[in-house]
Amino acid sequence: MIKLTVLYNQPADPAAFDAHYFGTHVALADSLPGIRRNEVTKTTGTLDGSVPPYYLTAELLFDDVDAMRSALASPKGQAAAADVANFASAGVTMFTGEIAG
Amino acid sequence: MIKLTVLYNQPADPAAFDAHYFGTHVALADSLPGIRRNEVTKTTGTLDGSVPPYYLTAELLFDDVDAMRSALASPKGQAAAADVANFASAGVTMFTGEIAG
Repeated sequence: MIKLTVLYNQPADPAAFDAHYFGTHVALADSLPGIRRNEVTKTTGTLDGSVPPYYLTAELLFDDVDAMRSALASPKGQAAAADVANFASAGVTMFTGEIAG
Repeated sequence: MIKLTVLYNQPADPAAFDAHYFGTHVALADSLPGIRRNEVTKTTGTLDGSVPPYYLTAELLFDDVDAMRSALASPKGQAAAADVANFASAGVTMFTGEIAG
């Protein structure tokens, strides 16, 4: 399985982020063709009490690289990518990976 | 569910990292009392072709915060934490989160 990991920086306005993310963005991500899982995790803290570097993470699973690329290139994928600018102005880190175990 | 996310920076010697990680560390993490899932993902790239910021991610799931704390405070948890220094000298980022969907 191929995972697209999306790490969202701490937003200036968490309530506005949540409203847009959970009200609009999750449904866009969930509608991507071929998506197998979209696991959204809200950061709660760190083990040493420091401020966590990310506010929220999303991990989108696809069968393989081709399925991920097709999903992102689709109209739904383009809409989801364009929507990120609507709530993630604090910045976002994205990378792909293969589940090893 | 509570997730402990561990993001490993790019190591100076990926082969040595892999040998220790997959040969020793995964078994330590998998042996933590109360662990529900340990999903290890090997980073493969980014969508824009840039170098991914992390080499490997691990996500450890527990039923709740108390279960996670008990696991980390146990002898197995202390062994796993101490072992990180044996292969992750390039640095590691850890934070906790609650699965939101």
